[in-house]
Amino acid sequence: MKKNLLLSLLFVNSIVVFAQNKDEQFFKQIYNSALTNSKCYSWLDHLSNDIGSRLSGSAGAEKAVQYTKSQMEKLGFDKVYLQEVMVPKWVRGEKETAYILDDKKKIIVPICALGGSVATPKTGLTAEVVEVHNFDELKALGEDKIKGKIVFYNRPMYDGVIESFDAYSGAVDQRGAGAREASKMGAVGTIVRSMNLRLDDYPHAGAQSYGELPKDKYIPTAAISTNGAELLSKTLKSNPKLKFYFKQSCQQFDDVLSYNVVGELKGTEHPEKIMVVGGHLDSWDLADGSHDDGAGVVQSMEVMNIFRNLNYKPKNTLRVVLFMNEENGNRGGNKYGELAVKNKENHIFALESDSGGFAPRGFSFECDDSSFNKINSWKYLFEPYLIHSFVKGHSGTDIGPLTSEKIVKAGLKPDSQRYFDYHHAANDTFDAVNKRELQLGAGTMAALIYMIDQNGIE
Amino acid sequence: MKKNLLLSLLFVNSIVVFAQNKDEQFFKQIYNSALTNSKCYSWLDHLSNDIGSRLSGSAGAEKAVQYTKSQMEKLGFDKVYLQEVMVPKWVRGEKETAYILDDKKKIIVPICALGGSVATPKTGLTAEVVEVHNFDELKALGEDKIKGKIVFYNRPMYDGVIESFDAYSGAVDQRGAGAREASKMGAVGTIVRSMNLRLDDYPHAGAQSYGELPKDKYIPTAAISTNGAELLSKTLKSNPKLKFYFKQSCQQFDDVLSYNVVGELKGTEHPEKIMVVGGHLDSWDLADGSHDDGAGVVQSMEVMNIFRNLNYKPKNTLRVVLFMNEENGNRGGNKYGELAVKNKENHIFALESDSGGFAPRGFSFECDDSSFNKINSWKYLFEPYLIHSFVKGHSGTDIGPLTSEKIVKAGLKPDSQRYFDYHHAANDTFDAVNKRELQLGAGTMAALIYMIDQNGIE
Repeated sequence: MKKNLLLSLLFVNSIVVFAQNKDEQFFKQIYNSALTNSKCYSWLDHLSNDIGSRLSGSAGAEKAVQYTKSQMEKLGFDKVYLQEVMVPKWVRGEKETAYILDDKKKIIVPICALGGSVATPKTGLTAEVVEVHNFDELKALGEDKIKGKIVFYNRPMYDGVIESFDAYSGAVDQRGAGAREASKMGAVGTIVRSMNLRLDDYPHAGAQSYGELPKDKYIPTAAISTNGAELLSKTLKSNPKLKFYFKQSCQQFDDVLSYNVVGELKGTEHPEKIMVVGGHLDSWDLADGSHDDGAGVVQSMEVMNIFRNLNYKPKNTLRVVLFMNEENGNRGGNKYGELAVKNKENHIFALESDSGGFAPRGFSFECDDSSFNKINSWKYLFEPYLIHSFVKGHSGTDIGPLTSEKIVKAGLKPDSQRYFDYHHAANDTFDAVNKRELQLGAGTMAALIYMIDQNGIE
Repeated sequence: MKKNLLLSLLFVNSIVVFAQNKDEQFFKQIYNSALTNSKCYSWLDHLSNDIGSRLSGSAGAEKAVQYTKSQMEKLGFDKVYLQEVMVPKWVRGEKETAYILDDKKKIIVPICALGGSVATPKTGLTAEVVEVHNFDELKALGEDKIKGKIVFYNRPMYDGVIESFDAYSGAVDQRGAGAREASKMGAVGTIVRSMNLRLDDYPHAGAQSYGELPKDKYIPTAAISTNGAELLSKTLKSNPKLKFYFKQSCQQFDDVLSYNVVGELKGTEHPEKIMVVGGHLDSWDLADGSHDDGAGVVQSMEVMNIFRNLNYKPKNTLRVVLFMNEENGNRGGNKYGELAVKNKENHIFALESDSGGFAPRGFSFECDDSSFNKINSWKYLFEPYLIHSFVKGHSGTDIGPLTSEKIVKAGLKPDSQRYFDYHHAANDTFDAVNKRELQLGAGTMAALIYMIDQNGIE
């Protein structure tokens, strides 16, 4: 009996060692494929340089749908299809102009209308400026001091944090709700310091919402570059009565039809269990959106390309989903989530890449402790590839609406230091993406999906 | 007795916990200082944008000596001094020109003379081209096929490795010894594919050596951009009889006097034990050398600035050493090592930053196992700052000559993916350095020195 037990243990042990070696070997093949035989960088080149910006409802967004569908059709999926979704269509119109009117002196500063903002009057808007750093300060000033003024939100992202996303979370309320809160106090417009840890001349776009305000209370809102914000603040100190002028002609149109792009490969053993990997096809309109989120799109497609190169047939169904409209509505993510419920689909896993195409550092997971512990036990396999940070946290906006009884959701965590140098700004272009960093991210995503596919989540 | 033992254990345990908390707290302060109160980025701005390139023996190198000395004098060292060292002076001269002569067609390609190369004749050099990928291939061709030709080394850095420095090690023999080996076979010149993982138009400089060859066997050697190398290789396939023309007017002068810059702060408890942190002041001549090694210079200075900001007085003597001539001679490193022996100095630790100013990932250590194990036990303190890779390996060229009975030498390991996009090329400029990445590197260096200072190395 004892001998049998010992033999059994040895046998089990051998299986574990064998599996480990098998996984180690397969990781090597995955990363080798990613670094030496991938398509993601040339896909991104096309998305960025041939198609360009892809704001929901734009011609670029529709071209991106057609292009990625046509490329996915070459990757050996069982089917590639479009999922209809109505998306908002907001158009920036003419390039904005703005200046500080310091007595007679006009000092031009770079701004961009925030997504969803209304236009200024055709001749622009001129008013005195009240600088604030948060909503408490705004409210403490009282309506008398705000009424008829432009509110200037100028709280910088805090540079003392290690992960730049924490600095973003700590500042982005100014952009998202600044116009709404200022309008309630009688402001005529708002100017928001760009969500950027650097001092430079790029204004950063991004979504804002008027919330429940009645339409006649909508006031124009724009982001100003960080250098512009510093200058405005400094000039205000010497001349609190200065005026600010800005003009923007952006417009909200009726919703239009667009699509998520889905590639599906049926699982060989558990076709009813679905693993999703995706990014979002839409981008802001000021640049190519190479990091946000062209990178996530092509990395997700690359996962399928890697499996195909290695002739790996997943046991569970794999879906590569390119979501539409993450930036200003999340309609694509919501639609995919709704359909999953309606069709009683069982999603066991969803992975999103939407934090830039930088060198991968790890993943953040939304899951229960037992799944997290299980996944953590695989970390040693990732460490030779310099992937070390497995934490609990936000996974991704597009996969946010996905719910199943037991689902693991994960977000790729690339190095975050440079992300907000480019985020939503005119310099989020192809040249800011490093080919190898992009490829390593794709390999890391494929490696995690392989482990989930091999081992399940519970 | 048992009770006493228990109490003793509890006491020891409390000390350990207390020390841990103290270290954790101090790490927070170090990184906060690095990210919110540092000078390294503005120092680098001056070094890069006001001084510029700093090849040994150049005016830029001498300005850098004076500038960093003057800045170090403001940091509260006990003394700041210059260490005399004779350095080689090689001057590129006029910008090089080169073209492929494909029948009557001239196709211009970007090249740069390699460091230490001789000039071509004044009217340039024209010859047929033999493409090889390694020295075995060269030798197998035999003198008949090489004599009178230009040897074109075109083995790319291998892109399948995870760390780009491994790809560099695997290819750089072509640059370092290519001219020497080709000359032995009767070649009249060599053209070497740039050490660059990307395809672009920047030729990358770097040192080469004729070794023991007699002077009349020195042949001119230059690097060609990776795009140029691809084009030359492709054109050779269709026309093996094409000729290549290049002209360079570089010149080796007599050695000149230069300096290492040293800042020293006497240890409060063990002034005889020395900890060194440094980078190299010289750079190649095609650009600012912001990554190589402006970053290492200003990060080393920042270590002192951080300690000063936090009012930390090291127990052991701290020396910030800015070495001269790493790129083409390592005379500064050799001189510092010689003087350490001559003065019977006891160096317990040396840390170099010379792998770019990118996001720090860890350190590579040259030390014995017991020190390595001890240092590894501190890793948990670094992990909240996303520093996770402690490995054994090369520390740094400048600190290479340092030997003591028991010394730990370490190199900062930043993320390596982008390093060879810029290394020794005209695009190694200030804009390629991210402020936060640079600062995090400096903080990481200060944190390690603090732990060494507090705990010793054995």
